[in-house]
Amino acid sequence: MKGLVIPAVKAEVEVQELATPIPEQNEVLVKLKAASLNRRDYWITQGLYPKIVTPVVLGSDGAGTIESIGNDNETRWKTSDEVVIYPATNWGVQESAQSDDFEVLGMPQNGTFAEYVTVAIDQLFPKPTYLSWAETASIPVAGITAYRAAMVQGKLQSGQTVLITGIGGGVAVFALQLALAMKATVYVTSSKESKIEQAKALGAKGGYLYTRPEWGKECLKEAGPIDVIIDGAGGKGYGDLVSLLKPGGHLVNYGSTAGKPEKLDLFKIFWRQLHLVGSTLGSPADFGNLLKFMTDHQLRPIVDLIHPLDKGPEAIAAMRDAEQFGKVTLEI
Amino acid sequence: MKGLVIPAVKAEVEVQELATPIPEQNEVLVKLKAASLNRRDYWITQGLYPKIVTPVVLGSDGAGTIESIGNDNETRWKTSDEVVIYPATNWGVQESAQSDDFEVLGMPQNGTFAEYVTVAIDQLFPKPTYLSWAETASIPVAGITAYRAAMVQGKLQSGQTVLITGIGGGVAVFALQLALAMKATVYVTSSKESKIEQAKALGAKGGYLYTRPEWGKECLKEAGPIDVIIDGAGGKGYGDLVSLLKPGGHLVNYGSTAGKPEKLDLFKIFWRQLHLVGSTLGSPADFGNLLKFMTDHQLRPIVDLIHPLDKGPEAIAAMRDAEQFGKVTLEI
Repeated sequence: MKGLVIPAVKAEVEVQELATPIPEQNEVLVKLKAASLNRRDYWITQGLYPKIVTPVVLGSDGAGTIESIGNDNETRWKTSDEVVIYPATNWGVQESAQSDDFEVLGMPQNGTFAEYVTVAIDQLFPKPTYLSWAETASIPVAGITAYRAAMVQGKLQSGQTVLITGIGGGVAVFALQLALAMKATVYVTSSKESKIEQAKALGAKGGYLYTRPEWGKECLKEAGPIDVIIDGAGGKGYGDLVSLLKPGGHLVNYGSTAGKPEKLDLFKIFWRQLHLVGSTLGSPADFGNLLKFMTDHQLRPIVDLIHPLDKGPEAIAAMRDAEQFGKVTLEI
Repeated sequence: MKGLVIPAVKAEVEVQELATPIPEQNEVLVKLKAASLNRRDYWITQGLYPKIVTPVVLGSDGAGTIESIGNDNETRWKTSDEVVIYPATNWGVQESAQSDDFEVLGMPQNGTFAEYVTVAIDQLFPKPTYLSWAETASIPVAGITAYRAAMVQGKLQSGQTVLITGIGGGVAVFALQLALAMKATVYVTSSKESKIEQAKALGAKGGYLYTRPEWGKECLKEAGPIDVIIDGAGGKGYGDLVSLLKPGGHLVNYGSTAGKPEKLDLFKIFWRQLHLVGSTLGSPADFGNLLKFMTDHQLRPIVDLIHPLDKGPEAIAAMRDAEQFGKVTLEI
């Protein structure tokens, strides 16, 4: 089979001819129809991820059909069933956090940027029938991260006011769609006016260039205090987000691309009874709830680009440039 | 009546002869039997509190008997009923946080360091019959702050591991008692070995001098990762507390006597799905739940000192020195 491989740390990714894997007991072989990219894939190519093992087939997000099943006693699934893959293993028994053995698909285990992948049977979920393959493959990491951040950790309630920072990234765009489906009033930030306009076209009420120092004041004036903030950046701006929260509000963070926050105003945090919560990916239960929520609301992931597998290196480059609005996918 | 008054900002507190207040519609006049002090009272004498109004009778915590009722239609209460006072007004309709109109008793409204105080009828709760007046008057601010921090914001579950920083203060000692009643394994910190020993005598499993740089490592080794941390200090140590939390754990903060936290490790916060939560005082519902919890577990507040009202200035000085273990009270 063909697979997009990173041969060594910081080496260029390349499409290689590989042996098609054979599913072991309690595994299935999935023939992939589509995959999608995440910033994680780019970080790994740059050596910026803990415990990198090479060579490895990259890719956490995939959807396809069941090619073969390693467990003869399996009755829930049969070959040619259409599935989307829960993008990790070993979440563990607690809903509150993943176990120490948690592993995201696509390093160290071979991932979805290939013609075939073996995954645990428990990672299979039925493909939503109303979505294309590229749309379905866009769901796993970005969708579950947005769902857990907004709904589980952020406790988003119908009709609340939501702020989503860095709109355009896969998680942020999913969070926008989920919040709008919850009938929230949604505001966004970006460094690009064009992305704010795209968010408004999807239903955001307003947006702010976070590069303007006065954006927070403008946001407070226009939006009023915010119930739930979904942030993937952290850094110096994190402390400013605290000031935008309504008493009792939630600031949920799922990434720290802008580094460590500084000088938090703890007085505001305790006097306003604020919740600063961390979130990463989500449990299998979260994934099931996400798929049900999306189907109930007929949500379609925003696919920005579709590349063939052979153009994998270009797709990775798109992750580096972060110019996209929504998901970058691979058709296989 | 006699009352402990702060005549002007930063002036010395003094016992003055004052007119006994008259309850208006929906108010009652309470003849106080005991009151207790909080750090807030000391901060106000130092001008370190927002919007100080003088002259004012200090004091948020009080218990006594109903002397007269301003509302002729009141049927729940009658004169000479024994009561403990919910220490604030205008919490508002949301349990998640107090309203903007929230006011703590004892500034700007005259407080409990006096022979009489008028309060809203809704602030009255029945005195727990098994407690002395000094014990009862020790409950309101410290008890409700500890209850909300541990149970509501910290979501403390039976059998969890708890760390309480700065043991000795009223809130911290209450939190220790509540956590022990929840069958938690409790560890404490202090700058004084003697306070750690007092906490152990009450049931704490262990304690650490937070003045030793290696205390966090020792705590992790002995206690393992912590489910719920209750902190009233903030400052540089706040970031270290984050490292002690179990994945999915809660760090609840109710004060920032040590200043602003610096350089938070956001990666740990999102990867471990941590909850950093602020908490201050509590709602009337929290107060009712606290009193029920205390009665169910027959908890007795730890009273460190009992002064007569005339010795109010000395009692305030005790708040400044923070040498106490438990509550400093006034017998009236």
